[in-house]
Amino acid sequence: MRMTAAVWHGPKDVRITELDVRPPGPGEVTIAVAYCGICGSDLHEYVDGPHAVPVGTPHPASGVTAPLVLGHEFCGTISAVGPDVSGLAIGDRIAVEPHYRCGTCPRCAAGEYNICRHFGFAGLTGHGGLAEYCTLPAYMAHRLPPEVSLEQAALFEPAAVALHALRRSGAGPADTVAVIGLGPIGLLTVLLAGRLGIRRIIAAEVVAERLRLAGRLGATDLVDAGSGEDAAERVRALTGGQGADVAVEAVGAAHTLRTCLAATRRGGRVVLVGLTGDITLSAFELVNNEQSIITSVGYRNCHPELIRLVAEDGLDLTPIATGTIPLDQVVPRGFEALLGGTSQIKVLVRPNPGPR
Amino acid sequence: MRMTAAVWHGPKDVRITELDVRPPGPGEVTIAVAYCGICGSDLHEYVDGPHAVPVGTPHPASGVTAPLVLGHEFCGTISAVGPDVSGLAIGDRIAVEPHYRCGTCPRCAAGEYNICRHFGFAGLTGHGGLAEYCTLPAYMAHRLPPEVSLEQAALFEPAAVALHALRRSGAGPADTVAVIGLGPIGLLTVLLAGRLGIRRIIAAEVVAERLRLAGRLGATDLVDAGSGEDAAERVRALTGGQGADVAVEAVGAAHTLRTCLAATRRGGRVVLVGLTGDITLSAFELVNNEQSIITSVGYRNCHPELIRLVAEDGLDLTPIATGTIPLDQVVPRGFEALLGGTSQIKVLVRPNPGPR
Ligand SMILES: [Zn+2]
Ligand SMILES: [Zn+2]
Ligand SMILES: [Zn+2]
Ligand SMILES: [Zn+2]
Repeated sequence: MRMTAAVWHGPKDVRITELDVRPPGPGEVTIAVAYCGICGSDLHEYVDGPHAVPVGTPHPASGVTAPLVLGHEFCGTISAVGPDVSGLAIGDRIAVEPHYRCGTCPRCAAGEYNICRHFGFAGLTGHGGLAEYCTLPAYMAHRLPPEVSLEQAALFEPAAVALHALRRSGAGPADTVAVIGLGPIGLLTVLLAGRLGIRRIIAAEVVAERLRLAGRLGATDLVDAGSGEDAAERVRALTGGQGADVAVEAVGAAHTLRTCLAATRRGGRVVLVGLTGDITLSAFELVNNEQSIITSVGYRNCHPELIRLVAEDGLDLTPIATGTIPLDQVVPRGFEALLGGTSQIKVLVRPNPGPR
Repeated sequence: MRMTAAVWHGPKDVRITELDVRPPGPGEVTIAVAYCGICGSDLHEYVDGPHAVPVGTPHPASGVTAPLVLGHEFCGTISAVGPDVSGLAIGDRIAVEPHYRCGTCPRCAAGEYNICRHFGFAGLTGHGGLAEYCTLPAYMAHRLPPEVSLEQAALFEPAAVALHALRRSGAGPADTVAVIGLGPIGLLTVLLAGRLGIRRIIAAEVVAERLRLAGRLGATDLVDAGSGEDAAERVRALTGGQGADVAVEAVGAAHTLRTCLAATRRGGRVVLVGLTGDITLSAFELVNNEQSIITSVGYRNCHPELIRLVAEDGLDLTPIATGTIPLDQVVPRGFEALLGGTSQIKVLVRPNPGPR
């Protein structure tokens, strides 16, 4: 069987190509992809990759090397089931949790498969979901109950990043959480913080439209970080001069980390979700203020909770999705549109435009 | 009444002076000091202070400005009780917890008085225990049961630093804790980690004698950091290639923080107890390894547990004390001896050499 896919060949070289659909091997399933979101890390690979994409040597977890099918935020319907797979059948609607895991290293044994020694990610180090079909380890598939639509499941991947970050932060209902930066992860952090019962959620961002959306998603206080006023000072003013209990750095910039530290109270925690590069900090201030820096990478054991929140608790992730495009438009209306401005938040690609 | 005290006038200018004993005001007690340990922060003030010592403007918590009586690791016997003090009487043997606290700021209200907005410390920002007498807020006094000697109580202050750091780390019995640096705090961290039931305690240090002492205090594995072998690699080798769950940075140097990160497993935590200066880190590696940096400053609510451990559980802190000197020897046999080599670990000053 053949399929259309968006294939990374090199920076600024993602091609819409015809490929064979790989039949599922033992422990694998093939899914017909319903939606695949475009993520910042896809853009990263598109602009100046390879970063995670294996080039030359096949990645140990997937056995794959570039050219590679991008896309890791996806869901769909099972179209084929390989040998030795139980609990999944053709026609099952599933959300994909794209972490590869070895299952045997100490972190996997402890259930912390997001930090498996053999890191891998479908759509970054193995073939992903920007395609009509994707063949994957069956452990990546979470079956959806009838109450959960594929539109919701399309957003589980970034929602899981936000949920894991909140879990890592240790934030509880009595805490004030400041979310600095309202891209998809920041906005989903606002939304899920509300679902976790956190009563005070301060959202800071320069783009007014995103700030308004944060308000609709449950932020209790909005800080216009583009107003010229110091955002950290605003957060402190909103918290009686103290600072937030937890600040989530959702911009990915060293200067925002400094804003987060300044916006966080003594004894508080700053959570890094996707910061890269080098950071320079005053250890004296960090220790003297007893502030901690918590990091969060990917997610673990979040999808069942997201399914439950949507199915039973009325969680609606779809306000994050600002556009749906066909697969052949992934470069101009996906990557280039996201690079060109802030009007889109999350763009979903729909490789199989049949009825859902 | 007059007393002898070791008074900081400036860097390298600590004088043995006769002073008036200040009578206790409301809510205060005066203690006859039995022992006062010399701490790294005292050395810091001695060598190139002022760091915390108030000069010119009186410190808001104490109302004191230099010249200032140094010493914050002390214990003794109550010699006078001011008005409005309950539960304490002349003759009570007490350990001093030298944190000033306002009692009303949000952190104090939450019981986190070590990060009180109005930071202060007897012996650094107010008069301390390197004197025959010291007049203090009564809330700093912890009465000792008969089972706890003043020799043990003399070491409660650095032991509390170690206990608070271990609590902050979240380390539990199943965890492997690496302690990097075996000064007084590192050694007490080793000792108390054993008391908390932590079964695997790796101690790393360059001074062979301190390493041997760590072994006697309960370290299960000793890493000679002066052998030319990479200490982090040794810790990883001792943990099946993984790294420790928790590493405690007890040297206070940026390069040791890097050793700690390299010695810690994915998802692990590095605890900073006394690091100062600037640190530069790879945020990418930190996030990718899901490692967190936890800080710990001072202590809170540790003294009752230390009293319990000594009184009921046979905890013996005294192996840390390597020398006892009279007050008039604090400069040559205290500060200068500690600066001159590593043969001393904790030097105790005995301002009142009467019977204990
Ligand atoms: Zn992503
Ligand atoms: Zn693994
Ligand atoms: Zn000290
Ligand atoms: Zn306070």
